[in-house]
Amino acid sequence: MAARRSAGKPQLDDGADELVIPGDDLRLMVRVAFGEHGALGPGKIRLLELIERHGSITAAAKAMGISYRRAWLLVEGMKQAFRDPVVATQHGGAQGGGSGLTPIGREIVQRYRAIERTARAAVGGQLRGLKRALRNSR
Amino acid sequence: MAARRSAGKPQLDDGADELVIPGDDLRLMVRVAFGEHGALGPGKIRLLELIERHGSITAAAKAMGISYRRAWLLVEGMKQAFRDPVVATQHGGAQGGGSGLTPIGREIVQRYRAIERTARAAVGGQLRGLKRALRNSR
Repeated sequence: MAARRSAGKPQLDDGADELVIPGDDLRLMVRVAFGEHGALGPGKIRLLELIERHGSITAAAKAMGISYRRAWLLVEGMKQAFRDPVVATQHGGAQGGGSGLTPIGREIVQRYRAIERTARAAVGGQLRGLKRALRNSR
Repeated sequence: MAARRSAGKPQLDDGADELVIPGDDLRLMVRVAFGEHGALGPGKIRLLELIERHGSITAAAKAMGISYRRAWLLVEGMKQAFRDPVVATQHGGAQGGGSGLTPIGREIVQRYRAIERTARAAVGGQLRGLKRALRNSR
């Protein structure tokens, strides 16, 4: 049996637009697949946002808890998929140069987040239905 | 800095609608995340559909090109996540018994596919915008 959820459960994320279902973490994640060329999902988008925020791939990797190498491979994979760099490194070696998003990198992040918002808003009721079905089945 | 793009840069894909994205295979994939309990995405849903169609986990695994063990682990993972079996095996051992979906298994598949349809319909225009942005960046 599922643990019963009390109505008085504290809502840490109250008001955040992230949780489709406040109080429960049933969440829609979206991924945009590019045919044979891979896909763009929450991990890569988060990485790009962190690169922009921290100004370096190294710092972004650390903030995500992944290795520099893994972050770099993700960035390189996006470059290949889009045939355009999404990250620009100003100077310095791979480990240290200041990095940020290219204009297309920024646009990809913005468009992905907009797609995610739209999809989440559209399916909110259906997610609640799925949640009820799961709860009732127990 | 990103490499500068000259206006006269040869465009191998000039005029083609299919740069990165041959034809129109920019596709939204959805995943429903259950907090700490895992997620439900296209792979698991496809597996459930194939179990229902073929009447066995073994045949479904083969149709998906995954091992029986992997399929079984996916099914077990769902059982844990939903605290309810999604697949019922009628008789016979793990390798051979006839299997099908439980009522909740079927409902999960139907609800997931409905969520997917809704999300895709909602973001169609935005996906086209992303595709144009990727094309124009070259």
